[in-house]
Amino acid sequence: MIGTQGFVRSVRLPVPALGNNIADAERLKAALKKELDTDRVVVPLGVVKNLPGLVRKYDHRLKTVLFRESFGWRVVSVQDPDGSDPVCGIALDIGTTRVVARLIDLETGKTLGESGFDNPQIRIAPDVLARIHHAKEAKGLEELRSSIIDSVNVQARELCEGAGIGIESVYLMACAGNTAMTHLFLGIDPSFIIREPYIPGVNMPDPMDALSVGIQLNPNARIFLFPNIGSYFGGDLIAGILCAGIHKREEPSIMVDVGTNAEVVLGTRDWLIACAGAAGPALEGGMSKMGMTAGPGVIDRVVIDPDTRHIEVHTIEEKPAIGICGSGMIDLAAQLFLSGMVDIRGKFSRERCGDRLVLKDGIATFELVLAADSGTGRPIALSQVDLNSLTSSKAAMHSILEVIVQQTAGIGFDDLERFYVAGTFGSFIDPRSAISIGMLPDIPLEKFQVLGNSSLEGSAKLLLDPDLFDEIATIRENLTYVELNVNQEFMNIFSGAKFYPHTERSRFPSVTIWGQA
Amino acid sequence: MIGTQGFVRSVRLPVPALGNNIADAERLKAALKKELDTDRVVVPLGVVKNLPGLVRKYDHRLKTVLFRESFGWRVVSVQDPDGSDPVCGIALDIGTTRVVARLIDLETGKTLGESGFDNPQIRIAPDVLARIHHAKEAKGLEELRSSIIDSVNVQARELCEGAGIGIESVYLMACAGNTAMTHLFLGIDPSFIIREPYIPGVNMPDPMDALSVGIQLNPNARIFLFPNIGSYFGGDLIAGILCAGIHKREEPSIMVDVGTNAEVVLGTRDWLIACAGAAGPALEGGMSKMGMTAGPGVIDRVVIDPDTRHIEVHTIEEKPAIGICGSGMIDLAAQLFLSGMVDIRGKFSRERCGDRLVLKDGIATFELVLAADSGTGRPIALSQVDLNSLTSSKAAMHSILEVIVQQTAGIGFDDLERFYVAGTFGSFIDPRSAISIGMLPDIPLEKFQVLGNSSLEGSAKLLLDPDLFDEIATIRENLTYVELNVNQEFMNIFSGAKFYPHTERSRFPSVTIWGQA
Repeated sequence: MIGTQGFVRSVRLPVPALGNNIADAERLKAALKKELDTDRVVVPLGVVKNLPGLVRKYDHRLKTVLFRESFGWRVVSVQDPDGSDPVCGIALDIGTTRVVARLIDLETGKTLGESGFDNPQIRIAPDVLARIHHAKEAKGLEELRSSIIDSVNVQARELCEGAGIGIESVYLMACAGNTAMTHLFLGIDPSFIIREPYIPGVNMPDPMDALSVGIQLNPNARIFLFPNIGSYFGGDLIAGILCAGIHKREEPSIMVDVGTNAEVVLGTRDWLIACAGAAGPALEGGMSKMGMTAGPGVIDRVVIDPDTRHIEVHTIEEKPAIGICGSGMIDLAAQLFLSGMVDIRGKFSRERCGDRLVLKDGIATFELVLAADSGTGRPIALSQVDLNSLTSSKAAMHSILEVIVQQTAGIGFDDLERFYVAGTFGSFIDPRSAISIGMLPDIPLEKFQVLGNSSLEGSAKLLLDPDLFDEIATIRENLTYVELNVNQEFMNIFSGAKFYPHTERSRFPSVTIWGQA
Repeated sequence: MIGTQGFVRSVRLPVPALGNNIADAERLKAALKKELDTDRVVVPLGVVKNLPGLVRKYDHRLKTVLFRESFGWRVVSVQDPDGSDPVCGIALDIGTTRVVARLIDLETGKTLGESGFDNPQIRIAPDVLARIHHAKEAKGLEELRSSIIDSVNVQARELCEGAGIGIESVYLMACAGNTAMTHLFLGIDPSFIIREPYIPGVNMPDPMDALSVGIQLNPNARIFLFPNIGSYFGGDLIAGILCAGIHKREEPSIMVDVGTNAEVVLGTRDWLIACAGAAGPALEGGMSKMGMTAGPGVIDRVVIDPDTRHIEVHTIEEKPAIGICGSGMIDLAAQLFLSGMVDIRGKFSRERCGDRLVLKDGIATFELVLAADSGTGRPIALSQVDLNSLTSSKAAMHSILEVIVQQTAGIGFDDLERFYVAGTFGSFIDPRSAISIGMLPDIPLEKFQVLGNSSLEGSAKLLLDPDLFDEIATIRENLTYVELNVNQEFMNIFSGAKFYPHTERSRFPSVTIWGQA
C-alpha cells in the first residue's frame, strides 16, 4: 500500500510516435501529473540526463522516487520498474544533545536500522546559547555546521552498511530540530534568534538537494527540514504534533515536551495554541538540569511505604546507586510527599523523616541511599535546596499548563482527551508521581501517553506519507504562538502551584496523602 | 527604468518587532511578493545563510537579484541597496559551429562585452549527426559536454576581465541553441533526437543552478536554456521569434533561418506555424555547404552589366579573390541569370557566356575570376554542378515558403508585413539577388529585415525583461509545428521552383531579365 501511495510510484509513459513526439521529460511529467493529481511536476537535470535511455530500456514503464516541494512534486530518481534495489529514506532528529537517525524502506515502511550519537557541537559549545555565540566568531558557524554534517554522513554510511545497502539507495532525508539546531545544520546565521525581538533567519526552508547541504546520499537526494514557527518553537515540535496527531482530533489534546526548553501545544483539528521558551527565572535551572542522565546505577524509581516509611529504590540495570535521574527525582518527591516526609510547603518534615534527615553545610538534606549501600561510597542525598528547585520546576510546569489550558484556551483540564508527554522528560516519567506533586493535572491516568522521540517519529512518518506536507501547512496555519509573559498574574498562579500538590487541594482529588486518608 | 522593471529590484522589509517576528527569509518573500505581484517567491539556502546579517547591516533595505522560474520567482542574491558593484548577466548563443557570449549590465541594459569562439565540439565531431553518434561512445557525451562547458567558462572569465568586473558579478545566464546543442550542453542523452519518431530528452528544462551545469559564475547564479519544440525546432528559434517579435504583430510576418538546417516561422500574435528540418534530398548538401566561410579575399558581391557583360567582383577587405561565399554565390547566380548568361532552366548559355565558359573534366565551368587576377593562381570558377546544387537549394527554399505560407497558412506572400532573414544566411544575403533567382518571393524590398544572430539577441532581451518568460510560454502554446513531408506534391512545387526565377514568370514581376525588357 505504501508503495502506491507514498513517494515511490510506478508509471507507464505513452509510447512516442510521429504524431505524439513530445520529449521524454515532458511525457514523464504528464504521466506523473495524472498519477499524483497535481499540476506541477519538476524533472531536474540529474534525472533528465539518462532518462531517454532508461525510458526505452524499461519499455516506457518506470519506477519513480518522488518528493513534495513547496510548489508541487519533484522526481528524485527513475529506475527499473521490476528492480529489487531498495528505495530508502533517513529520518533525523537533530537534538541539541543527541542526534538520532533512522533508516527506512520507503516502499515497505520498514525500519532498516536506527542509531544515535552525541551532537558533536557539544564539544565546541555546550548549549544553544553558547553555540549561537560561537557562530559569531570567525569560521565559528562553519565549524558548527561541518561538525554535525560530517557526523550525520558517517552515521548514514554506518546505518546503510548495517542494513547491507549502498548509500546511493537513500533518496530522501527528513530532519527535525529546534530553530537554532536547524540554522546550524544548514549554516544559516543564527545570531538574531536570541536577540529581541527573536527573529530566525528562516521559518520554512524549501526542500534542498542533499548535496547542497553537504549530505552525501544518492547524488540526486532531497533533504527536508521541518519548518519552525519562531525562534522558540522549532521544527522538532511540528514533527511532534504530527506524531501525536493533535491537529486531527475533534476533542482537545495537549502535548508537553520538556527537553532543553519547556514547550506546550494544545488544540484540536480546528485550532492550535503553542507556548514555548523559558518561563522566566522559575524554570531556569529547572527541569532540564534536574537530576543526571540515565545510566547504570542511576535511580529511576522510588517507592516509600507511608506507614513504615521503608524506602525502596530501583536503579538502572540494578547496579549499586550512584545518583538519581529526573524521573527518579519526581518519584522521590512524590513518595516523600505522600508519606508525609515533605509537607505541603515542600519542606522536609523533621518529624517524619527521622534519621534520614541530616544537616550538611547547614542545609537539611535527605539521605535516600546511605553511604554503605551506595555505589559511590557517599550517600545519595536530596537537599532542601535541590527540593526547592524541583518545587519551582513543578510549579512552573503547572502554571504554564494552567495559563495555556484554562486562561488562554478557556477550557478545563477535564476537557483534555489526551495528554502527550514527549522528549526526555516524557520518556521515563511516571504520570502518577507527577500528578502527586501537582506537576501535571489530576486527570485519568489512561489519558497520558508517552511519545518517546516525537521529533524522530514525526520525521519518519513524513517519509512515508506525502499528505503530511499538507498537514504541516495546516498546523502552521492553525497554530497561534503565545508568548508566555512572566507578569504579576503568572507569579500569583505560580505561588499557588508551589504548594504540594497545590493551595487548592480540591484540584487533586485522586492524591491521597498520609495522615489525611 | 530597467533597474526597476527587470531582474534587479530594491525592496524595503518591515522592521521586526515582538508583535511581528516572522523570520527574515519570510519577510523578504512577503516584500518581494508585493513588489513582483506574485504568489510564489523562493529564497534558496545560499541566500538565506547570510541574510540575517545583511538585513540589519543595510537597515532592512536590500537590492535583490531575481530570476523567473517555472513556478514563480527566485532570489539569486541580496546586496547593498546603495552599492555600486555591477549586476551582470551573460547571453549565450550555442551554435553548432560558433558560440557567442555577450556580457550585459542587468541594471542599465548596456552591453559590456561580446565575443565568440568556434564550438570546440567540432574538433570531436564536425556536425550534429556525428556528435550525437559520438555521444553514444563511452564517455563520449561527457567529452562533448565538458568541452563546451570549459570553453564557455574561459570565455565568461575573459569577458569579465575585459569589462573589469569579477566573475562573481554575473548572476544570470540565458542560453539558446538547437535541440541537440542544448542536450550536449546539459549532458543529456541525445540519442533519440535523430531516430524516428525523433524524441528529445527534454523540451523545457527548468532553470538550474549554474554550478550544477558546471558553469562558474556567482556561486548562486541561475542558468536558463530556451525551450525547444521538438528535435528539429530548438530554443535558438524560440529566441529568434522573441527577437523578431512575430508573436506580437497583428499582421503576419515570417522568419527564415538558414544555418545548419532551414527553419521557417510564420505567424501573428494569434497563431504561429513553424517548419524545420531537412526538406529531403533537395536541401541536402544545399544551403549550408554553399560557398566558403567569409574571410579576406572571399567574393561577397558580384555585379554583371547585362549589356557589356562586364564583371565586377567585390572581395572582403578588397584582397585578391580566393573563393566565393554563400551571399556571393547568390549574387553571382542572380547576375548571370539577369544578364542572360544562365537561362531559365539554370543552365549556362554558351552563347552569352562566351570565353568565360570552359570545359573542365568535361563539365561546363564559368570562370568568374581568371587565374591571372586571382589570389590563388587558379581561376575562381562555378561549374554547372555547383550551379545545379544552388538551383536545388533555391528551389527548396522557395518550395518550403510556398508550402508554409500559401498551402499551410492559406495566405499570400503579399500578406506578409515583414520578412526576417536570420542566421548565417541572413547576415550577408542581398534580398534583391535572392528574389532575382526566385529563392525569396517577389515582395517589396523594404519588408526584408536582417536579424543577425537572432538567437543571441533573443537571449540578451530575456535577461532584461522578465515578461518575456510569459511570451515564451505564449509562443510555445500558439506554435504549431509542421512536419514538411517530401511527397509528390512537394516535388511538383519543387520542380516548378527549379526554374529561374520560376515556371510561373508572373510571380516575379519585379525581375527584369536581359533580352526580355
